[in-house]
Parts: sequence; structure tokens; C-alpha cells
Amino acid sequence: MSSTRPARRSYQAAGLSAARACCSPPGCSLHAEPSSSIRDVQFCTVSIMKRKDVSLATKMALIHAMAVPITIDGCGRKKVLIVYAHQEPKSLNGSLKTAAVKELTKQGCSVTVSDLYGMQFEPRATRKDITGDLHNPEQFNYGVESWEAYKNGRLSEDLIEEQRKVEEADLVIFQFPLYWFSMPAIMKGWLDRVFVQGFAHNFPQCYESGLLKNKLALLSFTTGGDQGMYSDDGVSGNIRYLLWPMQHGIMHFCGLSILAPHICFAPEYAPEEERAQMLTSWVERLKTIWEEEPIDCTPEWYYK
Amino acid sequence: MSSTRPARRSYQAAGLSAARACCSPPGCSLHAEPSSSIRDVQFCTVSIMKRKDVSLATKMALIHAMAVPITIDGCGRKKVLIVYAHQEPKSLNGSLKTAAVKELTKQGCSVTVSDLYGMQFEPRATRKDITGDLHNPEQFNYGVESWEAYKNGRLSEDLIEEQRKVEEADLVIFQFPLYWFSMPAIMKGWLDRVFVQGFAHNFPQCYESGLLKNKLALLSFTTGGDQGMYSDDGVSGNIRYLLWPMQHGIMHFCGLSILAPHICFAPEYAPEEERAQMLTSWVERLKTIWEEEPIDCTPEWYYK
Repeated sequence: MSSTRPARRSYQAAGLSAARACCSPPGCSLHAEPSSSIRDVQFCTVSIMKRKDVSLATKMALIHAMAVPITIDGCGRKKVLIVYAHQEPKSLNGSLKTAAVKELTKQGCSVTVSDLYGMQFEPRATRKDITGDLHNPEQFNYGVESWEAYKNGRLSEDLIEEQRKVEEADLVIFQFPLYWFSMPAIMKGWLDRVFVQGFAHNFPQCYESGLLKNKLALLSFTTGGDQGMYSDDGVSGNIRYLLWPMQHGIMHFCGLSILAPHICFAPEYAPEEERAQMLTSWVERLKTIWEEEPIDCTPEWYYK
Repeated sequence: MSSTRPARRSYQAAGLSAARACCSPPGCSLHAEPSSSIRDVQFCTVSIMKRKDVSLATKMALIHAMAVPITIDGCGRKKVLIVYAHQEPKSLNGSLKTAAVKELTKQGCSVTVSDLYGMQFEPRATRKDITGDLHNPEQFNYGVESWEAYKNGRLSEDLIEEQRKVEEADLVIFQFPLYWFSMPAIMKGWLDRVFVQGFAHNFPQCYESGLLKNKLALLSFTTGGDQGMYSDDGVSGNIRYLLWPMQHGIMHFCGLSILAPHICFAPEYAPEEERAQMLTSWVERLKTIWEEEPIDCTPEWYYK
């Protein structure tokens, strides 16, 4: 990831220029708007892909030029999966989730929500996740069994469905309240069970070559403690310390590129207008989310 | 914690000397063994507590002298709770748990095991954890509701039972396979639901004044990756990085003193004799576990 990033801006410029050269109205906003953003290029590129008068070589060059890969489907929309874990729709987490669905849909994205409590999602990794016979019934090994089941299409239905959502997504947003310096168990269980070997990683296919590479991940969460507690001098230490296992150990391990986390500190103790501001800031950020550069997910980002 | 630790050795010496002064056979091994360990003093102290010819002042002085607090119950035994999360009793985790039960029982400790998969422990923090009416039925807030329910004795039965086990324990051992740089969801859920406000912490009663102070915690776990991957130069970073949220964010936050983690690296790829050695090392360590000093749970321990 880090080796391609420095060149991303020039790739993007090349993409913009290539798109302008071979693309013509109608159905394209590039020529009407000289200051077109990289997102416009992505949408425009999709429409170019469907044209028969543009050569395959040009199409390939365009795809290559787009450092952030594009999704080519029927309607050319970016796809977002929001994995959401809060018991109460009226909570700030619920509002952040709803606001994201609204803003991203307005942008033309296709948005799917996995509402874990609503689905009563099962967090426990057990024998029940494998349908039919086990690879080794003498000694149950979840890692081995779920890997074998994935290869043979014998994972339980709920997991196949969640994997399908991940597979289709360009960006996965995790929306949750921080529980014990981490995600709530119901969300941890989603990761334990959905990101199995074969689907999300397959050693040595991990980190830069993880199986979910070319996708983005973003942790959006609320905290109980205030920002001071989570500072270098605070009792709970810099907030980045606790991001390592989630961002590096899970997301990066599977090849996902990590966008900076979105953190709302101590909303429970904030006055109403501050909570409203937290919602507004999230929506504002989402407006340009496709132009963001992933973080450099190395120990330096977390500890220096 | 860190402020009392430097003085612990001298406290212990004082305890040993005080115990020797007021304690006499039979039922005491101190006089027979000049090199008595701190554990002998603890056991001896318990028997002194039951004697009517020793003044209350002496008894209080003895307790104060013991930096590691002692449990005074019917049989004067140390109490250990093992929170265990593995689906397969024949796994190395299962063997490590069984070996710990055996060794600690042999020492005279009272050992309780919470076998989370065996109990089908519920990891999801939901409305069901509160019996009867909610404090605020209009907007469900798990933190507030579980706190109120704790105060009014209205938490669900399974949580009351687990809290009773924690309350009685001098040492809590967490035995698990590392899942995604953390504990499996079923164990995370045990912490999300059992360590509620009022029981384990009650801001500002956290960290040094957390409600579970005077207890010890120890993470004992197995990894998939080998030790090289979890080194400073390894792809997964120093193993200590991932301990921060669990040890500092959960255990230390609640006042528990942290014993060094016990880590078995990549047992799945180890030959049989190496796996046997992993078991032996664990039992060896447990033999002197009551003499161990807790780690200094500050960012320096994790990141320097």
C-alpha cells in the first residue's frame, strides 16, 4: 500500500486527463465542470467502460490510472457496507449510521447496512458455522474447519450472506460505541466469523497482499471518556494505541486500506448542539470521502 | 499500584517477621522452613487470623504487611477464576486450562472455571441483561441500564453468577486463542457484560482506584503467527502493542494488577515435544505465581 501511495496523485491526474480525452457528453459531467474531482472521474470512467468505441487498451489504462479502484456494475455506483452495532436507533451511533446512509445515497452510492443487534447476529464461533461433516471431527479446530467450509461452500448461510456484502463493497464503515478500548463483542464476533481464511486472508496472502485489498475500511465510533483521557498525558493513553489491533491486526492484515478513524468523544456528556455538530461533521467528511488518502498503517502512525 | 510496588519487598519481609513472631506450630510451616516463601506467610497469616490469643492490632498489622492481599475464608485458600474460551477440550488451550486447575488445586487453591463455550455464554449486551423495568425505556443506554440494574440487584442471573466468581477471586486467568489481535468475541462479551459500572469501576474509581483492585489478572493465550511475526521487526509488530487494550484498557482500568502474559506462540505448527514443553512451562510458572510482581502497566511497558 505504502509503495503505491506517493504516486497516487499523479495517477489521479493521468486518470482525469485520460477520461477527458476519450469521454464526451452526454452523460458526463467532466466537460461541463473544469474543476472535476477524482470522484467525477471515477463515475465517468464507469460510463466509458460501457462504450464500444473506446479501445480495451484505453479502458485498461484508465483503470490502472485510478489508484482507488472502481466498481463496475449495472449502475456504476460505489458500494458501501456499514457494519453497525448499537442497540438503540435513537442513539448518536444510530444517528451517525442513518446520516451516512442518507449522504452516501445522495452521492449515488449503493449502501448496505448490517444492523448486528437488529439481526441478532451470532458472535460465537462454533461448530454451527459449518454445515455438514467436519474435516476432522476428532478435534475441532475453528480456523481449519471454517477455511475448509469456505472452500467447499459449506459455511452457514448468515456468513455467506455477510461475505457477499463485503465482497461487493468498495468501503466498509464500522459504526459502534467503544466498549473496553475495542468494538462490542457482537461486532468482534462478526469479524471472527466472517473474515475467515480463504475469504479475507490466506497466509502468506496478508497485509499488502491480503485478499480484501483494493477495499477501504473506516472505524467510526463514540467514546465514553473525553479527549483529554485519550491523549498522550491522559490516563487512557493516546487513542491511537487502541486502534492498532483493530486497524492493523484485522483490517490491514486482510489487505484493506485504512481511512482515518472518525471519533466522537464523550457524546453522552455533550450538550445538544455539540451532538448536532458531531453529526454535521461526519456528513461533511463523507462528502469528500472518496478523495481521502488512506493512513500509513505502520507502528509510526500509532506510537510516534 | 506503581507507588506501592517498590515497597512490596520490605512489606513482605515485615510480614514474614511478624508472622514468625506471633505464630507457633502446629499447623505452621514457617518455623520448620527457615527459607519460607511469601506464600507460606500468606497461608500462615490466615491461620493466625483465626487464633483468639492474637490481638486484633497484630492481625491488622499483618494484613497491612501483606502487599498482596490475602483471602480469609473457611479453609484459608487462595481463589482462582479461570475464564476459558476454546471450543475443543483436546486443544492446547484446553490442556493449559486443565493443567492450571490441577497445579493450583495441588497448591491448595480453590479453582473455579467459567468454560464460556461449554456454558454457551451469551456475548451480546442487550435489554435482556436487565430484569424488570428499565430506568429509561424511551432510549436504551446499555451502560446506564446495567449500572442501575447492578445497584438494584436486577441484572440477569448469569451476570450475577459471574460477578460472584470475580468477587471471590484473588487471581483471574483468561485462557484463550488470540483471535484478530484480541480475545474471541465470546470472551469479549463476558467482559462487556460482567465488568459493568458499579461492579468493576465507577468513575472516577478507575485505574489505581478501580473497584477490582487487590486482585490479579493474567492473560494466557496461544497465537497463530510465530514469535518472529510478533517482534519489533515483524509484520504484526511487537506482541505487547496488542496487549494494551486488554491489559490496560480493561484489567488495569478496573484496578486489577497485571501479571506478565503467558504466551504460547504458534502451537499448531509446533512438534509434539514442543507442545508438551509449553504445558510444562506453564505449570512451572504457576508454581511460583504468588510470588510474582505485577508489571508496570504504563505506555512504557508496551511501547518503549
